Amino acid sequence: MADQDKEMTDDYVWLQESEGIGMEERDKVTIIVHSGDLDKIYSALIIANGALAMGMEASLFFTFWGLLRLKKGGLEKGPLSKMNMLGLGRWMVLRRMKAAKVASLEKLLADFKDLDGKIIACEMTMEVMGIRKEDLRADLIDEYGAVGTYVQEARGSAINLFI
Amino acid sequence: MADQDKEMTDDYVWLQESEGIGMEERDKVTIIVHSGDLDKIYSALIIANGALAMGMEASLFFTFWGLLRLKKGGLEKGPLSKMNMLGLGRWMVLRRMKAAKVASLEKLLADFKDLDGKIIACEMTMEVMGIRKEDLRADLIDEYGAVGTYVQEARGSAINLFI
Amino acid sequence: MADQDKEMTDDYVWLQESEGIGMEERDKVTIIVHSGDLDKIYSALIIANGALAMGMEASLFFTFWGLLRLKKGGLEKGPLSKMNMLGLGRWMVLRRMKAAKVASLEKLLADFKDLDGKIIACEMTMEVMGIRKEDLRADLIDEYGAVGTYVQEARGSAINLFI
Repeated sequence: MADQDKEMTDDYVWLQESEGIGMEERDKVTIIVHSGDLDKIYSALIIANGALAMGMEASLFFTFWGLLRLKKGGLEKGPLSKMNMLGLGRWMVLRRMKAAKVASLEKLLADFKDLDGKIIACEMTMEVMGIRKEDLRADLIDEYGAVGTYVQEARGSAINLFI
Repeated sequence: MADQDKEMTDDYVWLQESEGIGMEERDKVTIIVHSGDLDKIYSALIIANGALAMGMEASLFFTFWGLLRLKKGGLEKGPLSKMNMLGLGRWMVLRRMKAAKVASLEKLLADFKDLDGKIIACEMTMEVMGIRKEDLRADLIDEYGAVGTYVQEARGSAINLFI
Repeated sequence: MADQDKEMTDDYVWLQESEGIGMEERDKVTIIVHSGDLDKIYSALIIANGALAMGMEASLFFTFWGLLRLKKGGLEKGPLSKMNMLGLGRWMVLRRMKAAKVASLEKLLADFKDLDGKIIACEMTMEVMGIRKEDLRADLIDEYGAVGTYVQEARGSAINLFI
């Protein structure tokens, strides 16, 4: 019986380990930031920071118009996805955000890095849009990658979003 | 042998249970409704209702422009994401939807609630846009929440979308 | 001990198999292509082809404005999601893509099919927009389906995106 118990225990441990790995692997948020709209950058950072605060990992893959937000001085320059619809200007929304004590994009991004969030810049976008590394805020960027990097992050993530 | 069988059975049951819990936990659709465009609200509700009809759970987290659609009288007031492109007006699309026997947004939303779909309203958006609870259709809303509520729903979902 | 080993082995095999099935089932990318914007079609195809090249499965569900891109002669006719913002015209972006040696949409789509990617056309969109089968590039389409088809693909996918 002792031997059998041991095997049972080993089996259980093996299961726990394999499950544990699986769980951990999937306990990540990966977001493609394709849009450069301010309201969508807000959503991406708020979700990512929320997940990080809850003990998950988070990766943001900046591509197309999203990558423009990582250019030096580019973070708060984006448009709103529905600027005219609400009759609110960009300035007005940023002001209301402040009044509602929502952190600025700069603060959200700083928090994201402090919480060990990972930022990947899309190399193809850099080539297509003629963006050089020195145009980007290199201190924020953990990796310059292509689609393979993205798929690798995403296939093991519990939450995948395209924003 | 009898004892061993019993242990094997317990092991099996334990596995089934742990798998069962895992499966059930993940058999959910969670959608962030960030856009207020009519065609995107359609997509969100059609997907959610399809999933509910197939025995899955569904949660819709209304935020930013999406939340405007839950204001009293706001559901069908949204624009189309590509209004000018097709040369079709909002009215035309709604009319074609009707001709093609696609349910109205109101009907889809009523079905969603009948099938036990869950609606979460984003508190931060309410603050930023100055929307009070009495401005919203409270009968539709199951919960007022923040990013933590969303991440909790999403990390256990098989399908996560940002619309 | 021999019998017990055998049972242990069976148990292990059973686990491997059940895990294997689960893994395989989830090792798929399913993307709803709702947008007809060229830059978003690019993103969808690049992600899908990357996943296919890494041994995953990929399904694209074309709906609303996305389905217009599958009309005969419609693939490169779409607008850009932020045409005016960058001051770049559609033609300019396509030209830069070429200069950066990014494959054309036609090439990406051909690769997608060669790699056994699956394309589903949304029947509801066809009805609403008055698109007939003969208007579409039938050689590309594997299936005409509704929301049930989509949910079935998506619930077993590791990566689900709405583009």
